[in-house]
Amino acid sequence: MPDAFRIGLLGRGTVGGAFADLVAERADHVANVTGLRPEISGVLRRNEGDFDEIVANSDLIVELMGGLEPARDYVLRAMAAGKHVVTANKQLLAEHGEELWTIAREHGVQLRFEAAVAGVVPVVRVLQESLAGAHVERLHGIVNGTTNFILSRMAETGAEYADALAEAQALGYAEADPTDDVTGKDAAAKMAILARLAFDTPVSLSDVPYEGIEHLTADDLEYARELGLGLKLIGTAERVDGGLSVRVHPAFLYGAHPLASINGPFNAVTIESPAITEITLSGPGAGGPQTASAVLGDVISAMIPPASTPEPSARLKLIADVTSAFYLHVEVADEPGVLAQLAQILGVQGISVKSFVQKGLGTNARLVMVLHPVLESRLSAAVEMIAGLEFVRSRPRAIRVLDEEF
Amino acid sequence: MPDAFRIGLLGRGTVGGAFADLVAERADHVANVTGLRPEISGVLRRNEGDFDEIVANSDLIVELMGGLEPARDYVLRAMAAGKHVVTANKQLLAEHGEELWTIAREHGVQLRFEAAVAGVVPVVRVLQESLAGAHVERLHGIVNGTTNFILSRMAETGAEYADALAEAQALGYAEADPTDDVTGKDAAAKMAILARLAFDTPVSLSDVPYEGIEHLTADDLEYARELGLGLKLIGTAERVDGGLSVRVHPAFLYGAHPLASINGPFNAVTIESPAITEITLSGPGAGGPQTASAVLGDVISAMIPPASTPEPSARLKLIADVTSAFYLHVEVADEPGVLAQLAQILGVQGISVKSFVQKGLGTNARLVMVLHPVLESRLSAAVEMIAGLEFVRSRPRAIRVLDEEF
Repeated sequence: MPDAFRIGLLGRGTVGGAFADLVAERADHVANVTGLRPEISGVLRRNEGDFDEIVANSDLIVELMGGLEPARDYVLRAMAAGKHVVTANKQLLAEHGEELWTIAREHGVQLRFEAAVAGVVPVVRVLQESLAGAHVERLHGIVNGTTNFILSRMAETGAEYADALAEAQALGYAEADPTDDVTGKDAAAKMAILARLAFDTPVSLSDVPYEGIEHLTADDLEYARELGLGLKLIGTAERVDGGLSVRVHPAFLYGAHPLASINGPFNAVTIESPAITEITLSGPGAGGPQTASAVLGDVISAMIPPASTPEPSARLKLIADVTSAFYLHVEVADEPGVLAQLAQILGVQGISVKSFVQKGLGTNARLVMVLHPVLESRLSAAVEMIAGLEFVRSRPRAIRVLDEEF
Repeated sequence: MPDAFRIGLLGRGTVGGAFADLVAERADHVANVTGLRPEISGVLRRNEGDFDEIVANSDLIVELMGGLEPARDYVLRAMAAGKHVVTANKQLLAEHGEELWTIAREHGVQLRFEAAVAGVVPVVRVLQESLAGAHVERLHGIVNGTTNFILSRMAETGAEYADALAEAQALGYAEADPTDDVTGKDAAAKMAILARLAFDTPVSLSDVPYEGIEHLTADDLEYARELGLGLKLIGTAERVDGGLSVRVHPAFLYGAHPLASINGPFNAVTIESPAITEITLSGPGAGGPQTASAVLGDVISAMIPPASTPEPSARLKLIADVTSAFYLHVEVADEPGVLAQLAQILGVQGISVKSFVQKGLGTNARLVMVLHPVLESRLSAAVEMIAGLEFVRSRPRAIRVLDEEF
């Protein structure tokens, strides 16, 4: 039985509950990776738990209370007591980051905060580690899922802002009071944190001018489409004339921009640097389980520096014959009965057709179809049988189609 | 003056040279992040340098020779001597990974290899760290830039495979002997490494069936477009019936798939897991400076575990007035002279028009234009002047347009 790694949990709302569940579910796996078994050793809620006792009985503190106080006080006290801290609190970092990072350095503890920015998208880790040696020139982000959902719906359905907001609220993508999201303030706090990391310069929320999406109209999106543009709420941090500009505002993007295809409640960040050209990271922007997963990644990193690849704990059987959807291209002499024979062969192998195009006529016809998923061995058998038909003029061409349900 | 961190470099081709340049360029920055100043303490080339001497005089070895031997022998001996190793050698890891990782564990050293897979896209770090606690269900990757460039050109221009390959060779995206790339073998090696990390199961190159792109025709891409599909060389690693399937083959993707918009010599990986839904990482797949940047990220991680956010070393001035392209929407009564007055105001502020649409007639006309980049203060001044014109029926609407040159 591996030793326990004790986690004190401050706050047990949606994310806190999801995190406690995830720790229980993944404890064995984490023990294999780190040599220590994580457990929740104490929980602080409004009417439950004693902060000092929880800190004394923990190896690490996870702060998921949100808000400035008492979260700030607790995080400072935990670090002063020599405990690592993992937090998802963007507001706290955007307003008091330098104070917190200073205390972390002074006490030699880790303060990790992947979940504070862009949900499960690992942008904090990539900036702090992969790009620790890089000179970042510019960073663009879609860092608020609520506004991206609203703008995506306005673009897709032609809805006005108020209607798209109401839909977002009904689906749980926007809060009853959506002010912090739709004014751009939430995105500005996240951009302050990202700019601090990317440009090594102190940036707080008050340094970031922001403009929201409330004034945008269905009209704007319609004209934009005619001009080949999509509309997003974009956070920008970039070097300008030897200084730094950090800001949040709606902006049109041309279709080839890596952020143009980010739709719905997703987040994404594009980082530009001469050495790397650019990299883009995208994923869900929020949600209890997603945020909890980002918090757990930070906890594991704090438990043990990843020295080397652990010994394999699984030895999954390697599977050869899998199920795929297929594109099938058959060149035929178009005679009576051709389709019937093809259909019969497909039917024998249990293959059904999703879409179908016929091109050309007479001896020069082509049948192109997309097939529903089928075991590859069955598709191969069908191709062999079709290739043997006398009216088939060349070897049928089969190419897999990914994720037809996507 | 901070202490030196000595790097022994094995191999000095394109990537090795770029890495040596990058270390020199970023040494001060790295010293600020880590407290140690990196330097190249020895270089081993075909006719230069002594391996044992280089190892003895290094804190870490960077292996950029490529190939199986003597790279394998050198990496094993360096780790046995207690040195961390950073390598970009996918072939070595795909064929001898378990042996190397075992020796790394036995000697308590780090073996890092971000640059071996997907160029600068930080997928190794994300799998090993951010997702260390996650249960990965499936991973899809475009992990070969050469084939993605060829397929992108075939789709864009209608070129046949041989012509697109010749273009890739002329541009330096394909080697004179492109066999390993176009047969899918290179991608299969990378998928073996990614599957090992994501599923904690030993996977070597010989376990990964692969199919290349040489047999694809312009025809396939044309029909596919009609069916709403794009064609990519896709690596897949996924759980199937309690086992694992790892494979590489061409596959069609529907337009909404996150990998569908990855064009040209780029790489991208999508990781699916119940807890995170999915995340996608994308960036340039190769190139000397890009690969060197990934190697340097690994070197910095090996130098010091990222304990906490370092003290800010830069204090960039925060810039308020920046340059942006704009969409401008003006509702006017369409009288003679309207356009002339608008054009004059824009001209006074030094603003030029990139594209222009007029909708409606008479008292109900709308002018929608995209403006070339301009200082925001100048745009604001122009908007105020336009708003004051008597034929303008409502406040002009200005929305930024991102990256018009993109």
